[in-house]
Amino acid sequence: MRDWTELFADRTLKMSASEIRELLKLLDQPDMISFAGGIPDPALFPADAFASAYAELFAGQNHGRALQYSVSEGYRPLRDWIAGQMSAIGVACDADNIVITSGAQQALDYLGKLLLSAGDRAVVGWPTYLGALQAFNAYEPVYERLDLAGQSSVSQKAQFIYTSSDFANPTGKTLSLEERNALLDQAAARGCAVIEDGAYQALRYDGEALPPLLALDVARNSGIENTRTIYCGSFSKTLSPGLRLGWVCAAKPVVQQLVLIKQASDLNSSTINQMVMAYVAEKCFDDQVARLRAVYKDRRDAMLSALARYMPEGVTWSRPEGGMFIWLKLPEGMDSGPLLARSISNAKVAFVPGQAFFADGTGRNTARLSFTTYEPQVIDKGIAGIAGILNEEIARAA
Amino acid sequence: MRDWTELFADRTLKMSASEIRELLKLLDQPDMISFAGGIPDPALFPADAFASAYAELFAGQNHGRALQYSVSEGYRPLRDWIAGQMSAIGVACDADNIVITSGAQQALDYLGKLLLSAGDRAVVGWPTYLGALQAFNAYEPVYERLDLAGQSSVSQKAQFIYTSSDFANPTGKTLSLEERNALLDQAAARGCAVIEDGAYQALRYDGEALPPLLALDVARNSGIENTRTIYCGSFSKTLSPGLRLGWVCAAKPVVQQLVLIKQASDLNSSTINQMVMAYVAEKCFDDQVARLRAVYKDRRDAMLSALARYMPEGVTWSRPEGGMFIWLKLPEGMDSGPLLARSISNAKVAFVPGQAFFADGTGRNTARLSFTTYEPQVIDKGIAGIAGILNEEIARAA
Repeated sequence: MRDWTELFADRTLKMSASEIRELLKLLDQPDMISFAGGIPDPALFPADAFASAYAELFAGQNHGRALQYSVSEGYRPLRDWIAGQMSAIGVACDADNIVITSGAQQALDYLGKLLLSAGDRAVVGWPTYLGALQAFNAYEPVYERLDLAGQSSVSQKAQFIYTSSDFANPTGKTLSLEERNALLDQAAARGCAVIEDGAYQALRYDGEALPPLLALDVARNSGIENTRTIYCGSFSKTLSPGLRLGWVCAAKPVVQQLVLIKQASDLNSSTINQMVMAYVAEKCFDDQVARLRAVYKDRRDAMLSALARYMPEGVTWSRPEGGMFIWLKLPEGMDSGPLLARSISNAKVAFVPGQAFFADGTGRNTARLSFTTYEPQVIDKGIAGIAGILNEEIARAA
Repeated sequence: MRDWTELFADRTLKMSASEIRELLKLLDQPDMISFAGGIPDPALFPADAFASAYAELFAGQNHGRALQYSVSEGYRPLRDWIAGQMSAIGVACDADNIVITSGAQQALDYLGKLLLSAGDRAVVGWPTYLGALQAFNAYEPVYERLDLAGQSSVSQKAQFIYTSSDFANPTGKTLSLEERNALLDQAAARGCAVIEDGAYQALRYDGEALPPLLALDVARNSGIENTRTIYCGSFSKTLSPGLRLGWVCAAKPVVQQLVLIKQASDLNSSTINQMVMAYVAEKCFDDQVARLRAVYKDRRDAMLSALARYMPEGVTWSRPEGGMFIWLKLPEGMDSGPLLARSISNAKVAFVPGQAFFADGTGRNTARLSFTTYEPQVIDKGIAGIAGILNEEIARAA
């Protein structure tokens, strides 16, 4: 076998297999309870609406268009619908402020390509979304830890602050209004962009919705064209991830440059899927989100109850107001990596060790649990299983 | 409006709007004849097969899977089918040598990401596929002109030679067996990779099929694992570009690294589209290709006849054995850019000025014509229109 590594670019040194994605391959056993994924419950997809959308498309006159290439910025009716949704959450904009991407993940890749040169500074949470780190890594940034209390590093040039305002992956944390304003202040002081990951935004189970960073930025600067915030949205957590559709909403110069990037990197997202998504979003987005909220809220509550019931002293966890994840902190010194292996083999329960979400490789005593794909009684059983493993571990350490 | 250019990475300086893609937007007039696109005739898409595939998927038990995330390497049955196709053209391989991409365009972006650091040398034809230059530009290479006769630059380190062996975009040129072997020899001497763009490979209208570079490389090196050639395939020219599906076939270390790149950049290509494409490819690929060959051959012949009938002396053109394009050379000193503007306004016929396909900005007296989307009599009319504009130009210059 040829030694390819000498031909691979240096950036590949920062690329390694995602623990989460690799885990997804191993967990295909019927009796395994996996809280590891960050995926929607497939039983809740609006499959009938999708079936109708594809069928009507082929029954009509538009299928030649659906199967053809299309413009890189995306299908206009879908961009119009998204602009309407963005306006409804406080971001007045039109279709020219929207570019369709193949999921929010592709938006993160494109934003790395747009904003990062090797050695540039990217400000991220400790922990943050692993997929964002993976997307940005290809452009070889240096990571700085986001600190909303201190202002210590304001003098350092940075390209952007990346954050998720609502129900963040992996912590489930929602930024308060004060934190949102502090983040925008810090970005303004540093002259950097803000990348707002809104993937979970629609999935709120309690409390009042807060304006996205982009909405606050629009209000501060009298319109989207003067903002520094770039919002990444997704259909993956609401309607379906299988069609691979998301979007960026931002000032037009950013959108126009992203369209050039998209043109050069995959020409356009699937035309047929964009047409189908426009149909399904128009037809059932609100109903689907209401349904998901009701079901996922029960599952979140079931996981919180089970954690309270089973977890040993010294273990703490987040209480997210929405999204898909609860973040577990184990006693200092514990390592969730080896625990996962034992949990899979002895308790048949999986989760994601938290370390992967830290740009500096710390966070060994943390773990991410997803509550979206199981009924409450299964969640209860799974959490009991993890607690059993933890109790064994604590007994061994004592 | 904020000045974003100071935040944009240097690589964006190399990104500009594709003349072709921008033209596509302007040509939406019913009486315009456009030879500018590089697109299949939408009337020839196997729409019934796609309609059945989507319908059967939703009628069955698999739609939850179709609407869900999936593994980054792609849907196994589709990879198996592709591995079978590759084996049929002389590339013995299995599914682990295949990664699904969102069109061959995405493969080119990923290969730039995999192989190019800023300042690295990429060897390309003069002219070459514009979309390849756009994809690679993001990784800031220096281009060197491919020279299959001379060996002058063998001592210069290069990362890869990019080429299309069959019916290349934009020239329609097919490499002879001698040229294929010379190219592999040169790559071996330089220790670089070969990127073979096989997007048009199936669309041969006359002559004998020649083995792809990858097949010759496999034969030279006793198996795919020892090859240096990375083959990019596409469903866009055969079944449909609207689903955005293509593939890379290469040695496993390359495929594995591309899977990591895909995971970080868009997780996976559309799951539902991959499942549908596997169904449609299995059901009707050979029939569809036979149909396209018959129809496109007539159109190529019509364009060649019209060129012979109408073109003034001093204009020459390629005689492609397949694909979608005929390459026009105008007399030295003519510039096809201003000619296009006049052709659109006065003759209502569009083509692509050739300059964009040259990495050094030469080639002003060249143009690309696509013959795939019109009936022979419309092709005849369109070529007559361009010839009229050329005759005016020649008369003016005289």
